[in-house]
Amino acid sequence: MMYPSGLKNLIECLKDLPGIGEKSAERLAFSILNFDGEKLDMFAQAISGIKSIKRCPICNNITDSDLCSICSDKDRVDDMIFVVEKPKDIVLFEKMGNYNGKYHVLDGLISPLDGINPEDINIDNLINRVKNNNVSEVILVFKPSIEGETTMQYIKKVLSKYPVKISKIPIGIPLGTEIDYIDSMTLEMAFEDRKNIS
Amino acid sequence: MMYPSGLKNLIECLKDLPGIGEKSAERLAFSILNFDGEKLDMFAQAISGIKSIKRCPICNNITDSDLCSICSDKDRVDDMIFVVEKPKDIVLFEKMGNYNGKYHVLDGLISPLDGINPEDINIDNLINRVKNNNVSEVILVFKPSIEGETTMQYIKKVLSKYPVKISKIPIGIPLGTEIDYIDSMTLEMAFEDRKNIS
Repeated sequence: MMYPSGLKNLIECLKDLPGIGEKSAERLAFSILNFDGEKLDMFAQAISGIKSIKRCPICNNITDSDLCSICSDKDRVDDMIFVVEKPKDIVLFEKMGNYNGKYHVLDGLISPLDGINPEDINIDNLINRVKNNNVSEVILVFKPSIEGETTMQYIKKVLSKYPVKISKIPIGIPLGTEIDYIDSMTLEMAFEDRKNIS
Repeated sequence: MMYPSGLKNLIECLKDLPGIGEKSAERLAFSILNFDGEKLDMFAQAISGIKSIKRCPICNNITDSDLCSICSDKDRVDDMIFVVEKPKDIVLFEKMGNYNGKYHVLDGLISPLDGINPEDINIDNLINRVKNNNVSEVILVFKPSIEGETTMQYIKKVLSKYPVKISKIPIGIPLGTEIDYIDSMTLEMAFEDRKNIS
């Protein structure tokens, strides 16, 4: 059967989403077919509405105002900055609930093979923030990977001339995970990141 | 972090899709955030465009014309009808490529517990088609389940007064599946549906 063209359009759009292949796109499109007109309008408007979301000029987080909700929060302190790879990573730390500092969102990680160089990922703004705002600690939180390690080393180097402490989240074993499910490379690196508790 | 309201709206819409929970909706929404304006417009229009899709008055398949592409195809014969639960099921049979008859799409399966009774699922139109179009065979293709079995028995009963052959797809073992992966209930029912090849 040839799908009606309206359905075909929607299936093509859905296939552009990550992790959605032909079969899933068909399944989702057929479920959207059951939405009533009002719900379809809401959904279409929600997608168009994404165009109004921009980046915070201070930290590069997403926002629909001039500054993001975190940078504009007067109760948060300026002297600690979590540096993350992308806006979504902020959510996790905010769920901890007890962090009262700021964030800095990079535009990805340094990856020369993919043509992503240090000057491409918003590090200059991080340097300016450290220089101008009395930042006492910068915590680097990148996925354990060559790109993450490269980006950490680069930031460590460019910030070395400022009186700021630089930390990273250790490589380790997630809560509730059996040791024998962990690959040996992770264990080796967790060993390097071991914490003295004596 | 509070998401910008535009992003929150989109996450809520995505959560209405089957199999998409909070986490997946967030992941998809963040990926849509990377679409450019043109792609967002296409996507929003594709969703609104679903409103133009209607049901074929003959077989209840989806269509954007007066009749669906199958009912309007003069090369297809009228004397054989596959009866399916929902429009999507047609795709599978069309992929076989050698079926040249028609379809009849029910509005679900009989399920008294869910308040779905025989008169709710478009069986009357099937009876009319059988009565008026010289249909020689009706093949029932419902998922093996209590609802599927109930619907089959009901259709068998209401069509018994017409000179039409009624068939069903047997319960059995899918290609490439090891016998010992099949549950015993399936095996038991496949035994009942066994085919004589002597």
